Amino acid sequence: MNFSKLFRCFKKAVLACLAVCGLFVSDGGAVFAADPTGAETLAADPGLALDFVWVLIAAFLVFLMQGGFAMVEAGLCRAKNAVNLMMKNLMDFSIGSLAFFAVGFAIMFGADIGGLFGSTGWFLSGDHYDVSTYLLFIFQMVFAATAATIVSGAVAERIKIRAYLIYALVICALIYPVYGHWVWGGGWLANLDFGLGHLDFAGSGVVHAMGGFIGLAGAIVLGPRIGKYGKDGKPRAIPGHNVVLAALGTFLLWFGWFGFNAGSTLSAHELRISVIAVNTALSASAGSLTAMLAVYLKTRKWDVPMGLNGALAGLVAVTAPCAWIEGWAAVVIGAIAGVMVVGGVYLLEKLKVDDPVGAVSVHGINGVWGLLAVGLFADGTYGNYTSEGPLATGLFYGGGWEQLIAQGIGAVICVGWAFMLGFILFKSMDKIFGIRVSPQEEIEGLDIMEHGAKAYPGVSISEDIRYDL
Amino acid sequence: MNFSKLFRCFKKAVLACLAVCGLFVSDGGAVFAADPTGAETLAADPGLALDFVWVLIAAFLVFLMQGGFAMVEAGLCRAKNAVNLMMKNLMDFSIGSLAFFAVGFAIMFGADIGGLFGSTGWFLSGDHYDVSTYLLFIFQMVFAATAATIVSGAVAERIKIRAYLIYALVICALIYPVYGHWVWGGGWLANLDFGLGHLDFAGSGVVHAMGGFIGLAGAIVLGPRIGKYGKDGKPRAIPGHNVVLAALGTFLLWFGWFGFNAGSTLSAHELRISVIAVNTALSASAGSLTAMLAVYLKTRKWDVPMGLNGALAGLVAVTAPCAWIEGWAAVVIGAIAGVMVVGGVYLLEKLKVDDPVGAVSVHGINGVWGLLAVGLFADGTYGNYTSEGPLATGLFYGGGWEQLIAQGIGAVICVGWAFMLGFILFKSMDKIFGIRVSPQEEIEGLDIMEHGAKAYPGVSISEDIRYDL
Amino acid sequence: MNFSKLFRCFKKAVLACLAVCGLFVSDGGAVFAADPTGAETLAADPGLALDFVWVLIAAFLVFLMQGGFAMVEAGLCRAKNAVNLMMKNLMDFSIGSLAFFAVGFAIMFGADIGGLFGSTGWFLSGDHYDVSTYLLFIFQMVFAATAATIVSGAVAERIKIRAYLIYALVICALIYPVYGHWVWGGGWLANLDFGLGHLDFAGSGVVHAMGGFIGLAGAIVLGPRIGKYGKDGKPRAIPGHNVVLAALGTFLLWFGWFGFNAGSTLSAHELRISVIAVNTALSASAGSLTAMLAVYLKTRKWDVPMGLNGALAGLVAVTAPCAWIEGWAAVVIGAIAGVMVVGGVYLLEKLKVDDPVGAVSVHGINGVWGLLAVGLFADGTYGNYTSEGPLATGLFYGGGWEQLIAQGIGAVICVGWAFMLGFILFKSMDKIFGIRVSPQEEIEGLDIMEHGAKAYPGVSISEDIRYDL
Repeated sequence: MNFSKLFRCFKKAVLACLAVCGLFVSDGGAVFAADPTGAETLAADPGLALDFVWVLIAAFLVFLMQGGFAMVEAGLCRAKNAVNLMMKNLMDFSIGSLAFFAVGFAIMFGADIGGLFGSTGWFLSGDHYDVSTYLLFIFQMVFAATAATIVSGAVAERIKIRAYLIYALVICALIYPVYGHWVWGGGWLANLDFGLGHLDFAGSGVVHAMGGFIGLAGAIVLGPRIGKYGKDGKPRAIPGHNVVLAALGTFLLWFGWFGFNAGSTLSAHELRISVIAVNTALSASAGSLTAMLAVYLKTRKWDVPMGLNGALAGLVAVTAPCAWIEGWAAVVIGAIAGVMVVGGVYLLEKLKVDDPVGAVSVHGINGVWGLLAVGLFADGTYGNYTSEGPLATGLFYGGGWEQLIAQGIGAVICVGWAFMLGFILFKSMDKIFGIRVSPQEEIEGLDIMEHGAKAYPGVSISEDIRYDL
Repeated sequence: MNFSKLFRCFKKAVLACLAVCGLFVSDGGAVFAADPTGAETLAADPGLALDFVWVLIAAFLVFLMQGGFAMVEAGLCRAKNAVNLMMKNLMDFSIGSLAFFAVGFAIMFGADIGGLFGSTGWFLSGDHYDVSTYLLFIFQMVFAATAATIVSGAVAERIKIRAYLIYALVICALIYPVYGHWVWGGGWLANLDFGLGHLDFAGSGVVHAMGGFIGLAGAIVLGPRIGKYGKDGKPRAIPGHNVVLAALGTFLLWFGWFGFNAGSTLSAHELRISVIAVNTALSASAGSLTAMLAVYLKTRKWDVPMGLNGALAGLVAVTAPCAWIEGWAAVVIGAIAGVMVVGGVYLLEKLKVDDPVGAVSVHGINGVWGLLAVGLFADGTYGNYTSEGPLATGLFYGGGWEQLIAQGIGAVICVGWAFMLGFILFKSMDKIFGIRVSPQEEIEGLDIMEHGAKAYPGVSISEDIRYDL
Repeated sequence: MNFSKLFRCFKKAVLACLAVCGLFVSDGGAVFAADPTGAETLAADPGLALDFVWVLIAAFLVFLMQGGFAMVEAGLCRAKNAVNLMMKNLMDFSIGSLAFFAVGFAIMFGADIGGLFGSTGWFLSGDHYDVSTYLLFIFQMVFAATAATIVSGAVAERIKIRAYLIYALVICALIYPVYGHWVWGGGWLANLDFGLGHLDFAGSGVVHAMGGFIGLAGAIVLGPRIGKYGKDGKPRAIPGHNVVLAALGTFLLWFGWFGFNAGSTLSAHELRISVIAVNTALSASAGSLTAMLAVYLKTRKWDVPMGLNGALAGLVAVTAPCAWIEGWAAVVIGAIAGVMVVGGVYLLEKLKVDDPVGAVSVHGINGVWGLLAVGLFADGTYGNYTSEGPLATGLFYGGGWEQLIAQGIGAVICVGWAFMLGFILFKSMDKIFGIRVSPQEEIEGLDIMEHGAKAYPGVSISEDIRYDL
C-alpha cells in the first residue's frame, strides 16, 4: 500500500505540468484579441450562437461513437479479450484527446508552415483560450480520437497494452494531425491545382482511410491470430462473442455519424446539412443491404455481422462526398461500399492479413472509395466546404477528370502516409520491446494476464477453435 | 468464390438504377424553385437555420430508437433468435428508408390527389432536390422505419426472413404512407368536419397504432410460438433472455422519443416544445409506475419487463396529445396507459394471440388511447400543429364532443386500415410461400438455420420450456 | 385475475388525482402573465428559441444518463441482482420525476422564503403552465433524478425495494430540492458574503456530492454485503458481472455529461459553452488515465473498472468549475480526481463501508473536490453563471482566499445536509420496517425473490465468493 510514494510522484508530475502550462499561459496574452468569455464574439456576430450549438451537439454525437466502436469491437471479438478492448477504447480517447490538446491541434490547425504543418495553439493556451478556438478544438478532438480507435479493431486480440498506449499517443499527436493539416488545415493537398483541390468533406480519407491503413500496417506487423489459419493455410472463422452488442454498437455509430458528417459544415447556416444527413442515412442503408445480399448469394446465409459492416462501409464511403451529392448517388455509393466491404474481407483473408473486426475493409478500402466518389458524383451544387464560390463537379456531372485526379492524388497520399508511418511505428515498437503478447497469453485471453479480470466472471464460455495447427 | 458473377449482376443493377434515376432527374428541373444548396432558403428566412438544427437533431434521436427497439426485442426474446432480431432491426431501417425514399415519401407528402394520396417527389429527384424537402424527408423517414420496426416484435421468433423483408418494404412504401397522408399530408382525415379535424401530433395513430395493429395481424396469421400454450390451453411465460438489454433499449427509446414528440413541431420557433418534452417524460414515468404497481397488486412481484413496457405505453399514449395538454394530464394519460398495457397483455394471452414483446399492447392499444386522449384532455391552449389559429379543445375543457368524435373516427380508420392491410399482406405471403419457419427451426432457433451463427457462441443457454404439449 | 377490483382502485385514484390537480389549476390563473403557448414569449425575445433548443437537447442528454447509470451499476454488480438494479434505475426516474413535478420543483425554484426554500409551482399548475417554466422544469427534473440514481449504486445488492421507492421519493421531493434552493434557487449559500457566494456551476455539490453522501449514509446503515469482509476483517473483491456493460454505461454517462455541464448555462448565448464542453472532456480523459495508472503502479494490472470510475470522477470534479477554468486546469483537476477515486475506494474498504460500485468515491469525494477546485482554479474570465458582472477568481489566479472559503462552506453544508438527512431517512426506515433483505435472499440474489425473474434465465453463472466466513 505504497500510497505516499504514489502521491509524491503525482505531486511532482502535477507541478511539472503546471510549470509547463504556465509557460504557455504567459506567452501571447494580449497580442491577438482572444475571447475566453464569448461576449465579444457574440456581439460581433449574434448568429454564431446557433453555430456553437450545432457544432457542439455534433461533437457530442461523434464522441458517442467511441461507445459504438467499443461495442462493435467487443461484439466481434472473443469474450476473453473483452476487458482489454474496453480499456483500449477508453484509453485511446483519454490519451488521444490529451495528446491532441497538447500537440495535435497545433500541428493540424495552427499557423501554417509551408503547407506542411501548423505551429501554434499548443495546450490551447495564451490567445487560444478563446471560445471559437475551443469550439473548433472539441469537434476536431473527437475526430482525432476516432482515427485512433479505428486501429484498435485491426490489431485486436494480440497486441500488448504498452504498444497500444504508445500508438494512440503518436497517432493523435502526430500522424493524424499532419495529414489532417494537408487537407483541412490549409495545407498542400487542399490547394492542389486540380478541381477545387483535394476534397474530403467529413473525413473518408482524413479519419477513416487514415485509421484503416494504420490498422493494416499494425495487423501485418503483428501477424494473424493463432488459429486463424490452419496448417493448410486456409482461413477459419473466429466468431465474435456477442452479435447483439455488435448491432448496438453499429446503431450508436450510425447515430454519431450524423454529427460526424452534418456537423462538418462547422456552421448551421449551411442549410445543406439536411442533404448531408439524408445522404448519410441512405448510403448506410444501401451498404447494409448489399453487403447482406452479397454474402447471401455466396453462402445462402444472412450474415448479420457483415450486414453491420456493410452499414458502416456505407457510412465511411459517404463521409467524403456527403455534401456534394444528391440522394440517389448516396444510394449508389453505399451499395457499392456494401459489396466492397465483403470483397475486402475475403481479399484480406486471401492475403493472410488478420483483421478481426474488418476495420481495414470498412474504413480503409471504403475510405478510399469515398474520396474517389467525390470526383465521380459531385453534382455541381455545392462549393468548397460552403454554399458559395466555385462548385465541386465530378466526372458524371460534366466536370471532367479534374476533381477525380485531385481525389486520386489525395487518396494515394493518404494511404501511403498512413501505411508508411503506421508500419514504421509498429515495426520500431516491435523491434524495441515486442508488440505481440505471448502465445500462452493470447490463447488464455488478454483479460486475465494484463487486467487480472474477466469480462464475465462466473460464465463458462467455450471456444470452438483448434489452436494445434 | 463466384465474385465476378456477383459483380456483373451488381453492375447491371446499378446501371438500371442510374437509368431510372436519370429519368427522374431529368423531369421537373426548373419548373419550381428548388434550392439544393440552401443559400436562397436561408436568405429568405434566416430563422430557418435554427429550425433545420432542431428537426435534424430530433431526427437523429428518432433514428437511435432503432437501436432501442433492437435491444428491447433482443432482451425480451430468447437468445436463440437474437441474431435474427438484430437482422430484422437493421433491415427494416435499411429497406424501409430506401422504400420511403423511392416511393413512400411521394405518396405521403406529394401533391395531394383527392385527399387520398400524394403523387410527387419520387426518389427526391428533380425539384425535390431541395434543402427543405430533404429536411422533411429525413424526419419522416425515421418515422416510417419506426412503424415497420414495431411490427417485428409481434411476429418475432417464428417468421421467415423473406416475409420480413417483404413486409418492411410494403409497410414503408405503401401501407404507412397512405394512412400518413390522410392525417399529416393534408388528406381527408386531417380535414374531417369535427373539431380541428383528426389530430395526431407525433403519431400515436400514424406510427404506433399503425405498427401495432399490422403486428397484430401478423401475429394472428402466424399463430402462437410452439410452447406458448399448453394442451390445457393455458398460456405459459416464455421469458426473454436479457432483462438488462431490455432496460437499456427502453432508455434509448425514451431518449429518442423526446425527438419524436418535440421534434414534431418541425419548428424550433414553437416554444411549446418545452411543454411537449415535459409531457413526454411525465407520461412515461407514470406509465412505468402504474404498470409495475398493477402487476405487483396481482402477483406480489415487481415485474421489470412490464415496468419497461409501461414506460413505453406511457410514451405511446402521450405521443398524439403531447402538444395539446398540460403536465398533470400527461401524468393521468400515462398512468392509464400503464394499466392498459398490463390489461392488454393479459387480454391477448386470453385470446391466444402470441405477441412476444407486447408490441400490440404497447403500440396498438395505447396508440388508440393516445388518439382518444386528445379529444378528452386538449386544453384549448394550442392550435392545429401551431400556436396560432383555432385551438384544440377536448371534452374535459368544455370543448364538447366534437374533437373526441374526430379522434374516434381517425382511430377506427387507423386500426381498420392497419389490421386489414396487414392481414391481407401476411395472409397472401403465407398462401404464396408460407411465412412461418419449420417447427424444427423454431425450436432450434432461427439463428443457426437462417444465419449460420449464434448470438453468443460458446455460451450454454438452457430453456425451461416444454415443447411436447 | 382480480382485474375489476384493480380498475376500481385505479379509478378512485385517478379521480382523487384529478380533484387535487383541479384545485391547483383553479388557483392563480390570470394573476401573472403565464404563456403556455410560447407565442408571446417568442415575440418578446426571438433569441429564446435557440435557448429552448439548447436547454431541451441538453436535458435529453442528461436523461440518457439514467441509462448510463443503469449499465454501470448492472456491470459492476452481480448478475443475480441485475433485474433489481434495472428496476431501481427505472423507478428512481419515474418516482423522482413525479415527485419533483408535484413538490420538489416548487421547493427548489419557487418564490423564496427566507433564503431557505421556495414555495410556488406545485404540479407546475396555474401560472406555472408556461413554456419558460416548463423548460426550466425539465432540465432540473433530470438533474434531480440523477441525484437519486447515484444513491442506488452505494446501497446495491442488499436493500429492500420498499426502502428504495421511499428514498427516491424523499430525495427528489425534499432533500435534494432544499439544498438545491440554497445554491441555485437564490437561497442563502448563493448569497454568502465571500467571493461571488458559493458557486457550483453544474452540480458537483448539488447533484453529485449530494447523491454520494446520501449513498454513504445508506451504505453505513445497511452494512456491508455478506462476503465482502472475511473473518479476518480483510476486504475481498466482489467483481461485477459484465465489464462491457460498465464501459458502455460510462460512455453513455460521459455523453450525457456534455449536456449536464454545457447545458447548465441555460442559454446558448453564453458562447462559453465551448470552453465548458472542452473542460468536461479533458477532465474525464485525465481522470481515467491517472486512475488506471494509480492502480497499475500498485498492482501491475490495468484495472478497467477503475479506469471507468476515473473517467466518471474526472467528470464529477469538473462539474462545478467547468465554466470558470481553462483547459489545462481541467486536466489537472481530472488527474487529481482520478487518483482520489482510487484512494477513496481503498479508504472506504479500510473503513468497512461497502459501496459496491464506488459511488461515494466517484460522486461524493470528487464532488467535494470539484467545489473546492472552483476556489483554486477559477481564472477570472467568467462571472456569476454569466459572462457579465463580477468575475469568479480563485486562489491560483490572485483572487485570494475569498472564493475558496465560500466553496468550503458550501461543501461542508452539502456533505452535512446530505449525510445527516440521508442517515435519518435510512435509519428511520430501518427502525420501522427493516431496509435490508434477508441473508438468504441476499445470497440467492434479489432478482428471484423480489422480481420472480432472472436477468439471464438459462445461463449458468457461478460465484467465486465465500459466504461462510
